[in-house]
Amino acid sequence: MSKGFLLVISGPSGSGKGTVCKKLLERNEKLVFSVSATTRKPRPGEIDGVNYFFIDDKKFDEMIENNKFLEYASVHGNRYGTPVDFVMNEIEKGEIVILEIDVQGAIQIKEKYKEAVFIFLVPPSMNELKNRIVKRGTESQEDIDLRLKNALNELKFVDKYDYIVINDEVDEAVSKIEAIIKAEKLRVARLKDILDNII
Amino acid sequence: MSKGFLLVISGPSGSGKGTVCKKLLERNEKLVFSVSATTRKPRPGEIDGVNYFFIDDKKFDEMIENNKFLEYASVHGNRYGTPVDFVMNEIEKGEIVILEIDVQGAIQIKEKYKEAVFIFLVPPSMNELKNRIVKRGTESQEDIDLRLKNALNELKFVDKYDYIVINDEVDEAVSKIEAIIKAEKLRVARLKDILDNII
Repeated sequence: MSKGFLLVISGPSGSGKGTVCKKLLERNEKLVFSVSATTRKPRPGEIDGVNYFFIDDKKFDEMIENNKFLEYASVHGNRYGTPVDFVMNEIEKGEIVILEIDVQGAIQIKEKYKEAVFIFLVPPSMNELKNRIVKRGTESQEDIDLRLKNALNELKFVDKYDYIVINDEVDEAVSKIEAIIKAEKLRVARLKDILDNII
Repeated sequence: MSKGFLLVISGPSGSGKGTVCKKLLERNEKLVFSVSATTRKPRPGEIDGVNYFFIDDKKFDEMIENNKFLEYASVHGNRYGTPVDFVMNEIEKGEIVILEIDVQGAIQIKEKYKEAVFIFLVPPSMNELKNRIVKRGTESQEDIDLRLKNALNELKFVDKYDYIVINDEVDEAVSKIEAIIKAEKLRVARLKDILDNII
């Protein structure tokens, strides 16, 4: 059997990584989604260990100290992190673990665990990126400008990634990610053991 | 547009690389097959520049001297080589060039041009390899034993390759190679230029 691996799907805001990952999971039941830890309170219906691992600040600090996060960040006063043990256990079992994350998080992971496979999802053009951000309709002109500026900055980190997927059409982007998964399973480093069986 | 690249499909005798490459080409008209140079005489119907580049020994020596081969070898008194100019011109145009070659040839190419993508095609088992060699029916027991021994030796070179494709069922093996091609087109190194267009 092929060894498992961590597939990081990342990109600037407006790249559509959320939509793409949702569709990817719908089309591929066997993929495992990484479950984040968070200090925010569960919302109605959210299940511990499924949607998130709900932990308190003390536990979060402990996990940082013990190097138990692949990456972590604060958003609106709540903390979020990717627990390394969950990811590694699944990989050990031969699973492919999908992690959807922003560019800053992906760069943290690259530093800690360069064996992961990194996909950079990008919008087809800056105009389209702007359209997508504007369409959300929840943001002021200032927020929109800031998001655009950040997205432009984040594109510079492309060298940290292995693959670029242009998210022009969601199904097409998902097909490309599926091809990357199929190919990465065939990497010599992941399949070498099976040669022993053949011999 | 994505940059072109050289895809080397290689494997021990009995791995079925000939059959797999034929099917791959049938299913993907846009792929370009590398054309070898040879000193052997054209057979009826063979066209210069299509089946082979037919050259004489003097020209072959010149090409070796001028480093114009990615690899070359002698088989039954005739010489065969992969002209570097043909491959590089096609890559320059953005084409994906397929080269089917034995393990010795692949290793020569790896030394000269490590940017190529290397696929190691293997039979599902040594028993199956033996069946395939025996089924050809043209070889003595001694030849069969020698081929098996060589195949076993050649499996040790797997580390020189990027991907392993087990050729259990031809269509499945071709699908895997198609996924590898689709993924390799998305490599950051090949697509970075298009980010400039997006920005």
